Amino acid sequence: MSLLCVGSIALDDIETPFGKMDGVLGGSAVYFSLAARFFTDVRVAGIVGRDFPAKHLDGLAARGIDVSEVERSEGKTFRWSGEYLGDMSGATTRAVELGVFGEWKPKLTPRQRSASHVFLANSSPRTQAAALDQMESPVFTAADTMNLWIERDRAGLLELLSRVDCLFINDGEARMLASKSSLVSCGREIVGMGPSTVIIKKGEHGSIMFDGGRILPLPAFPAADVVDPTGAGDSFAGGFVGFASGAGRPSPESAARSLGYATVTASFTVSRFGTGGLDGLSRAEIDERYAAFRRMFTGL
Amino acid sequence: MSLLCVGSIALDDIETPFGKMDGVLGGSAVYFSLAARFFTDVRVAGIVGRDFPAKHLDGLAARGIDVSEVERSEGKTFRWSGEYLGDMSGATTRAVELGVFGEWKPKLTPRQRSASHVFLANSSPRTQAAALDQMESPVFTAADTMNLWIERDRAGLLELLSRVDCLFINDGEARMLASKSSLVSCGREIVGMGPSTVIIKKGEHGSIMFDGGRILPLPAFPAADVVDPTGAGDSFAGGFVGFASGAGRPSPESAARSLGYATVTASFTVSRFGTGGLDGLSRAEIDERYAAFRRMFTGL
Repeated sequence: MSLLCVGSIALDDIETPFGKMDGVLGGSAVYFSLAARFFTDVRVAGIVGRDFPAKHLDGLAARGIDVSEVERSEGKTFRWSGEYLGDMSGATTRAVELGVFGEWKPKLTPRQRSASHVFLANSSPRTQAAALDQMESPVFTAADTMNLWIERDRAGLLELLSRVDCLFINDGEARMLASKSSLVSCGREIVGMGPSTVIIKKGEHGSIMFDGGRILPLPAFPAADVVDPTGAGDSFAGGFVGFASGAGRPSPESAARSLGYATVTASFTVSRFGTGGLDGLSRAEIDERYAAFRRMFTGL
Repeated sequence: MSLLCVGSIALDDIETPFGKMDGVLGGSAVYFSLAARFFTDVRVAGIVGRDFPAKHLDGLAARGIDVSEVERSEGKTFRWSGEYLGDMSGATTRAVELGVFGEWKPKLTPRQRSASHVFLANSSPRTQAAALDQMESPVFTAADTMNLWIERDRAGLLELLSRVDCLFINDGEARMLASKSSLVSCGREIVGMGPSTVIIKKGEHGSIMFDGGRILPLPAFPAADVVDPTGAGDSFAGGFVGFASGAGRPSPESAARSLGYATVTASFTVSRFGTGGLDGLSRAEIDERYAAFRRMFTGL
């Protein structure tokens, strides 16, 4: 089993009530793969500009992530500048410079096309579909999206949804896509759009998974130290799809455990600035926290 | 084991996106006892005005709740008028008329004083303390509070917290009381103020229980049909303290299960207008939903 992530590699400027960092490594594909690497063989398809420090790709490679086929092009790397205020429940985007990612049309290599699992990180539904078209015979396909595409390319998004096994979407976006007030009704409606698994992300409030007819609501891991939510959603998806890929062919049993591992992995992400919570992490630490998470429900 | 609830009995005017009802039975003590009655012997200490329809007390009595010692006084019954908008995450209070509840000084009867468990529903900390003073030898004491008292009588509230075993508080209020952004840090800080059990209520996002050193986060029961959140918090508390009372002396094991029953019981409350979700409910329906709730976590 192997997992391909198609998505952005970025340089981020982040400010939260706990601090500020400029030009740090970021992007959906980065957070996703830094989380997924604990569970499976991860390959990244993405693009960076000439300004992208070589040390960042070296750092990902040193952590076992295959970034050997990331494209490098004239122009600037995708850059996101954002701020979290108060209880950090949502980011305020100060600036986005798409750079080389804006015009990127993924051309997957034979190695990338052959992956058994694929995650299409947030980008335009047309770019996601273009990558999906190139996959040989994936066992499991997952995608993320955002409000922008629900508003600007609903048709393209619906077309994509009819083709993927799993969608990650946050609660506000689920309500936009499904036009219901109850998240449970939203989740069921989105399952009807195609993906047999829909995972609604609720930030500090956890998630709800709709997996066929089953519903699994999970709280976030109750961590005291939340300093930077950047990458929480992508590393959550990385934990989920990564664990699912490591577990082989998808099943209802592995879906529940994948959601648990997603939850726990994301809790490490938010405990440090940028990728700091994932950089030095070990599988043993994740397993230990997962065991603690399961134990919390003892006696229920 | 027996449970005394000290709190408001009200007439409510409620409007939500799903409908509107005027002058319906409400109040903290009503929702609490309608939930707690499934698990234990419940007595209510409260006060109503001359305008209060006799049928309401008869209805509570018919459901096994001891309202025989509820006081009746000249003046008007407590009246709350409120509205829930959009996703119904919070109520907008249009009007509050305290009526006879405003000046009420609880004078407990011998039967009320002898209860093993007591719940002090939201009212001024001084009123709550006055009731607590009269209890003979309670095994378990719990209280609810609100932002108003954190702002206006913090000293009185802290004094009360040093005397109760359990506090119910919503997430926004927990952040006001503890001045932390992380709910986990807030919960731990409030445990340090006295109650060995602190339960932070998060509405549609569930709850987090701090029970001694243990933390248990639980999602809400994922129900599709949410039409009126009125009374959700009080019936949640009723499920918790009611189940705990029925289970005898408090223990870490019964605390987890109490939280589960609280969660499930509150999910029935929000499924109908006013007390409609609790009125015709049976213990068998609660047990069935509790079993379904537990099953959701299978495979984790």
